Amino acid sequence: MPSTGQVTTVNRLLDEIADVGRADDTGGYRRFAWTADDASLREWFVGAVESLGLDVTEDRVGNQWAWWGDPDAAVTRGDPGVVTGSHLDSVPDGGNYDGPLGVASSLAAVGVLQAEGFVPRRPIGIVNFVDEEGARFGVACSGSRVLTGVLTADQALGLEDADGVSMADALRAAGRTPEHVGRDDETLVRIGTFVELHVEQGRELAGTKHAVAVGSSIWPHGRWRFDFEGEANHAGTTRLVDRDDPMLELAALITSAREVAADLGCVATVGKVRVLPNGVNAIPSQVTGWLDARGADEDAVRQIVPLLEARLQATATEESWTGDTAFDGQLAQSLATLLGDVPIMGTGAGHDAGVLASHGVRAAMLFVRNPTGVSHSPAEHADDADCEAGVTALTTVLRRLAG
Amino acid sequence: MPSTGQVTTVNRLLDEIADVGRADDTGGYRRFAWTADDASLREWFVGAVESLGLDVTEDRVGNQWAWWGDPDAAVTRGDPGVVTGSHLDSVPDGGNYDGPLGVASSLAAVGVLQAEGFVPRRPIGIVNFVDEEGARFGVACSGSRVLTGVLTADQALGLEDADGVSMADALRAAGRTPEHVGRDDETLVRIGTFVELHVEQGRELAGTKHAVAVGSSIWPHGRWRFDFEGEANHAGTTRLVDRDDPMLELAALITSAREVAADLGCVATVGKVRVLPNGVNAIPSQVTGWLDARGADEDAVRQIVPLLEARLQATATEESWTGDTAFDGQLAQSLATLLGDVPIMGTGAGHDAGVLASHGVRAAMLFVRNPTGVSHSPAEHADDADCEAGVTALTTVLRRLAG
Repeated sequence: MPSTGQVTTVNRLLDEIADVGRADDTGGYRRFAWTADDASLREWFVGAVESLGLDVTEDRVGNQWAWWGDPDAAVTRGDPGVVTGSHLDSVPDGGNYDGPLGVASSLAAVGVLQAEGFVPRRPIGIVNFVDEEGARFGVACSGSRVLTGVLTADQALGLEDADGVSMADALRAAGRTPEHVGRDDETLVRIGTFVELHVEQGRELAGTKHAVAVGSSIWPHGRWRFDFEGEANHAGTTRLVDRDDPMLELAALITSAREVAADLGCVATVGKVRVLPNGVNAIPSQVTGWLDARGADEDAVRQIVPLLEARLQATATEESWTGDTAFDGQLAQSLATLLGDVPIMGTGAGHDAGVLASHGVRAAMLFVRNPTGVSHSPAEHADDADCEAGVTALTTVLRRLAG
Repeated sequence: MPSTGQVTTVNRLLDEIADVGRADDTGGYRRFAWTADDASLREWFVGAVESLGLDVTEDRVGNQWAWWGDPDAAVTRGDPGVVTGSHLDSVPDGGNYDGPLGVASSLAAVGVLQAEGFVPRRPIGIVNFVDEEGARFGVACSGSRVLTGVLTADQALGLEDADGVSMADALRAAGRTPEHVGRDDETLVRIGTFVELHVEQGRELAGTKHAVAVGSSIWPHGRWRFDFEGEANHAGTTRLVDRDDPMLELAALITSAREVAADLGCVATVGKVRVLPNGVNAIPSQVTGWLDARGADEDAVRQIVPLLEARLQATATEESWTGDTAFDGQLAQSLATLLGDVPIMGTGAGHDAGVLASHGVRAAMLFVRNPTGVSHSPAEHADDADCEAGVTALTTVLRRLAG
């Protein structure tokens, strides 16, 4: 029963990092870029690929790559390699699967191929992308965005976390050299095809016979910041008519975002808030709300912020925008057929695979069934058997693409 | 010109602590109980009263007392002393005057009395109350509340700050012994009369000829916490209809609190919010909003929370409640006359003087004009000449009460 061996491998791999960055109070993960926990995860990745006999190289951004075979020889002969992998960082209080399942499944799949004596015709790479969630510096997929040049080094290094620490300073604190950061064409040309396995973040596979699906596209997705300025004052002594309380504008943003998104058939979320000074008896001086908006229809998503700005008489700052990202349709179809006519579906979640696809890389995604659809939460779950099916599917895909 | 000497003293005293707990980004003060900054302020208080030839004693709570004369001999002869003072802690991003002006003016006034050869018939005490603002543990005036037994030691020690640190652990971290904390009758009986000078927190004196007013009462005042539970999930992949997003309930609380307070002629404020996990792309699992409500009419203030609970179908947790607190009417009238028919006025802000008055202590307050009414803000201000007038008034009051 090789499949049992595979799931044991995936679970054992995930178990090895189960305590890293885990919050005692919620049981969720807080694995943020360039922290001590992130360093532990990166060390673990190095050890895991060494167990497969592979060495780690880093690109200019700090993404970690392990190659089975010579990627540069493949580039020279015009037939570059096949890369699989995902990320190890998390949102605040994230779950066990978003990111790590893709990395662990890649390690397990390569292990299976090695055990069966597979000889890759194209080199196979395993990647751990840094800072996919953007939880610390506010911009998702900064590892792949800087790699591809969508985000410049200056833009990335100037991003600040909630404590005002810039990414440049965070890199220095992690013993790294921010001056090295930048677009990395030498690394990019090595990626002939990229396949990212990821836990499903909806419930489309729940109740079907399919444990795995193939991705078709990533919805257009933007993040905006609304800064509402007010006048700090005493909560007990300031008459209501004398107040300039920005908390009321935050309330209007939250309520209006839901209404406007519902009207347009999109989703919109105010999930992050900052209140200054955040005292029980102080009218705030400033309140900031972050808006995340997505949807299948790019025109509709693009209407959300102008409508909110008009309603609230406020100006939003765009922190990121990614248009509709279709994966290679022919590749998706062939993989779905290869895996036994599994579903092909879009997703509202962003991924490094989407950043690479936008850059012109031939990319695909595999989704592993999520019985509840819950994600970005400690309750995120995938059944063991489905994780096992994911490794089997990824192994099949790598065997085909690299064989 | 002795008055010039006085204002120099007050300003010099405030200047000595101008850098303690000051935030670089806002210029506001973040002086929270039992922190390193708090310890610096307490050390400064010890040094300041030593300059007046007085020693500091601490009560069971950690409030600091400096007596000019023997307070216990006065208790024995049935004529206990006159205490003046205030607090040195601040709200988050508080101003320069709320608290420290009262302490510095007390020091200055005693200095003036000493310089003029005044011999107190009753002993005069100067007090620095700990944790008046409640910025760290959520309960205002915990120093005077525990002193008087309104708050039990168990209740106080179990309070937690935003990092989950209990007051007991904070005391231990500050090198103190939480087991000693509790109601302190030995200290209480020493207080024959308490006079607290404080910067005005409204604009009633602005534009009048008066730099100083006498307090009549403190409005009824409560703090409540609304915990809204939701289901953490991915902001991109969860359909609006599948969401249980507690941020929407926070918005309803903010909007409704303003409407209900306006209807009832009270003030209500949601100034503090906590969002978990507070990620841009995560539907929150829990959102908490704190409500501060006050007003001249106790019945009206008491209606606010039941109305909000009915509207929001939520249950609030009462964190504190203080009913209408009238200061000694005869004392207030006699001080107003003594000071030249200055105004007598109520306030929406809580004070340790109110806690003591509720406990039956003969208490009074002096308010120093605030030209903008702004308080609990770095922009809080009082003119130098008005601070000088405050010291003169307090000196006059102490001369009368202790002479």
